[in-house]
Amino acid sequence: MTTVHVYDTTLRDGAQQEGLNLSVADKLAIAGHLDELGVGYIEGGWPGANPKDTEFFRRARSELDLRNAVLAAFGSTRRAGGTAADDPQVQALLDAETPVVTLVAKSHVRHVEQALRTTREENLAMIGDTVTHLVGQGRRVFLDCEHFFDGYQLDRDYALDVVRTAHDAGAEVVVLCDTNGGMLPPQVSEIVAAVREETGADLGIHCHNDTGCAVANSMAALEAGAMHVQGTINGYGERTGNADLVTVVANLQLKRGYDLVEPERLRHALHLSHAISEVTNVVPYGRQPYVGASAFAHKAGLHASALKVDPDLYQHIDPALVGNSMRTLVSDMAGRASIELKGRELGYDLAGQPELLARVVASVKERELRGWTFDAADASFELLLRQEVTGEALRYFDVESWRVIVEAAHRDDAAEATVKLHAGEKRVVATGEGNGPVNALDHALREALAEVYPELEKFELIDFRVRILDSSHGTDATTRVLIESTDGERTWETMGVAPNIVQAAWAALVDSFTYGLMKAGVDPR
Amino acid sequence: MTTVHVYDTTLRDGAQQEGLNLSVADKLAIAGHLDELGVGYIEGGWPGANPKDTEFFRRARSELDLRNAVLAAFGSTRRAGGTAADDPQVQALLDAETPVVTLVAKSHVRHVEQALRTTREENLAMIGDTVTHLVGQGRRVFLDCEHFFDGYQLDRDYALDVVRTAHDAGAEVVVLCDTNGGMLPPQVSEIVAAVREETGADLGIHCHNDTGCAVANSMAALEAGAMHVQGTINGYGERTGNADLVTVVANLQLKRGYDLVEPERLRHALHLSHAISEVTNVVPYGRQPYVGASAFAHKAGLHASALKVDPDLYQHIDPALVGNSMRTLVSDMAGRASIELKGRELGYDLAGQPELLARVVASVKERELRGWTFDAADASFELLLRQEVTGEALRYFDVESWRVIVEAAHRDDAAEATVKLHAGEKRVVATGEGNGPVNALDHALREALAEVYPELEKFELIDFRVRILDSSHGTDATTRVLIESTDGERTWETMGVAPNIVQAAWAALVDSFTYGLMKAGVDPR
Repeated sequence: MTTVHVYDTTLRDGAQQEGLNLSVADKLAIAGHLDELGVGYIEGGWPGANPKDTEFFRRARSELDLRNAVLAAFGSTRRAGGTAADDPQVQALLDAETPVVTLVAKSHVRHVEQALRTTREENLAMIGDTVTHLVGQGRRVFLDCEHFFDGYQLDRDYALDVVRTAHDAGAEVVVLCDTNGGMLPPQVSEIVAAVREETGADLGIHCHNDTGCAVANSMAALEAGAMHVQGTINGYGERTGNADLVTVVANLQLKRGYDLVEPERLRHALHLSHAISEVTNVVPYGRQPYVGASAFAHKAGLHASALKVDPDLYQHIDPALVGNSMRTLVSDMAGRASIELKGRELGYDLAGQPELLARVVASVKERELRGWTFDAADASFELLLRQEVTGEALRYFDVESWRVIVEAAHRDDAAEATVKLHAGEKRVVATGEGNGPVNALDHALREALAEVYPELEKFELIDFRVRILDSSHGTDATTRVLIESTDGERTWETMGVAPNIVQAAWAALVDSFTYGLMKAGVDPR
Repeated sequence: MTTVHVYDTTLRDGAQQEGLNLSVADKLAIAGHLDELGVGYIEGGWPGANPKDTEFFRRARSELDLRNAVLAAFGSTRRAGGTAADDPQVQALLDAETPVVTLVAKSHVRHVEQALRTTREENLAMIGDTVTHLVGQGRRVFLDCEHFFDGYQLDRDYALDVVRTAHDAGAEVVVLCDTNGGMLPPQVSEIVAAVREETGADLGIHCHNDTGCAVANSMAALEAGAMHVQGTINGYGERTGNADLVTVVANLQLKRGYDLVEPERLRHALHLSHAISEVTNVVPYGRQPYVGASAFAHKAGLHASALKVDPDLYQHIDPALVGNSMRTLVSDMAGRASIELKGRELGYDLAGQPELLARVVASVKERELRGWTFDAADASFELLLRQEVTGEALRYFDVESWRVIVEAAHRDDAAEATVKLHAGEKRVVATGEGNGPVNALDHALREALAEVYPELEKFELIDFRVRILDSSHGTDATTRVLIESTDGERTWETMGVAPNIVQAAWAALVDSFTYGLMKAGVDPR
């Protein structure tokens, strides 16, 4: 089998994604992660097209210590009517001093005529001249044929001429791009096989996900004879994004026997995918194949009973191969088996205690009918479980009353909360301010407990979600509040359900503090 | 071409998604949207498995007026060692009174032996008996073969026996399920074609997205001879989700010549996809094919000038076919066009007034930056537009101050709001109670305005939604509140954005009352 190139374009095509804006430092950090993942080629940007990309290549020379990957500079063929040797844009590609230069060229006649505004012949000359010049300067050249598939369908002969011209001039790989992303796998298979047959060139594939088939199209091209696959981490990219390289590599390596990256590196896929999303500041997509937070999460009661027997019956791969792990979710669809499994994850053995298990199941179902959803709040579930097991709720403090006032006023902090409670031997009255009712309650509760439980100083509320459950009643509806908290190391989610958003938030806050103190090993004082 | 079934399982398999929890009212609302989209079959849930699904089918009979779709109840084959006629779970399927019953059956020998803990023969008997019984009771029966592809690869003969047994017993469609989602298109093609050849049964396909190929696998099955495709709206589902029915239908209809739904219905795909995500409260995925917010968004660069010449060169389909539209992210061209269009809809001609249009665009952009989205709240947009056109805000009353108090107390009404305002010649101070802060503010505002504007007596608040916009700041995040109101004839949506949920709700309430009075033809008094 020919060695397949894994070519990453996160830093160039991926950065076209709406809302994504990478600094030079971001790009250097991402390149380091990509190298760690084991990709073969990293396309760093378009030197000369903007100052940021020029600087990236300059700094990459001293700051980027690539162990696996080869750096590529991206640019276009020379302008019409000139020579490659005199073209400043082509010179900028050489100045980037990368082993590989990837050129984009037009291969669709209407794009040649209407966007480039030149002739078919001149476009071929631009390709031949630029490739020859760069190869002569010692560069390996890959050529991206923009809009190749659409162009092939419109004028097959011209599209093939483009491939032949690049190949004859010395391009090492000719990459067929589905720039508009509209192709489906059978078309990609057929066209890649035909181009390979007609030209003998080594071919690459570059797909976008506009039909939801970027991964399937990329694989179809490889199986039809391509030997180079382009994509981006997490499928970042313009419109619906590019082919997700994590999924493509995992599919090829774990299911089709390709040997693309060292297995040990693939085991870091989840970690690296998330590390890169920290840099891009794009929230990870929970349903992402292989590395999504939900990718190996099971909710169905039907499955949970069998999951206990043999997890492999319910997983398409061992999640550890990509650094992920199996999780069981608790919900009203789940029966005893999934609650038993969840209990085991949390360290409670419910298997030998059928009555206790039945009590927990009944309690979960009863609460879910009122709008709770435990699969989203492990911490609240654990507190419930603990209560059923021990026969009493864990209480660090006894609340006498609380009150929140929200006012239209000309201050920054528009809300004020007062909490009265008993903690340790003391009765405490504390008031907190905040920009909203929940924020104010959080501050007041902290203030009230600070002296007796100094441990909660490091707790922080990091996410807050509200769901109106039965909106047919307008403002009378039931409200569910989910709160995510952290102590700097672990994070936990708690939940409150009430007719009133403030009451629901209060319940979630109390659970959050209780859970945090319990996990910190603090006894009620 | 055989008529292809478009079978939606959002309400059953889609609801297995992590964090998704649908009330009966949610399920009825989604079913209405699915019917509007034109799907052929709606799987409503598993009657008898939980009280919620039983109630759904009961209420569906009187409350759901389906124009296109047929309702299906989902359940399993009878238990081992009994008879279908005596099985309470099978009886619950009949009690649901749906035209179609979809049965799930094991088709993988290890699942039969280890999960079901019965023999191969008894599993076949369970399938034959249950299908025969349901068909005898006048039901159309579809049979889902769980883990079919894995089972076929392990023991082809047994998998085929399952299909034959169901087919011979009268199952109308035998659905091959890639339950673990690990398949790739070539395997799906090959197996579907072989099963069709061997058994002659009408086949369906049910895919999950664990390899990122759910859409491609679904299409591969249809092209290999299946005539029934299952999926969920927005690809909701366990783990990485199910095949996204929006993408599958758009691909088949717009690119492969299938005639699945009326073109006019497909033009509402974006609207319905988003309407359903409002019910599920799952944030829409911007990169979703066809209907994602970014699906036709272009980030200028290489494309900018050519886009203006001929947008078709840069789009795989006309976005209007699915209700989407092209956006250019750098220029505000698209923004102007849609605002101009929106203005025309509302009776304001902005085309001839470039300065006014520029002012409205700037104002909308400034608000969108703060979290506003004028698409979702026509009434608030119209008030903004009117303000720019007339040069002043429409004011029926001047608010001096307001305040809400929420307390933990033993009363039903936990919140109290006080509003001080000037309306007509009068200064009014009014207090309202409610089960939550918004409800209390609504009551107080009504009370304060009742004498001067008796017209608002018939206004009613019918929906209330909250979204936390930037959840990275915990309770400090920005909050958007959407309110839907009615006067018994028309309904309107207004919006408020603020760091504080109560302030955001207040802004939306004030807009709601203002808009309602304006549309009632009332002049400020």
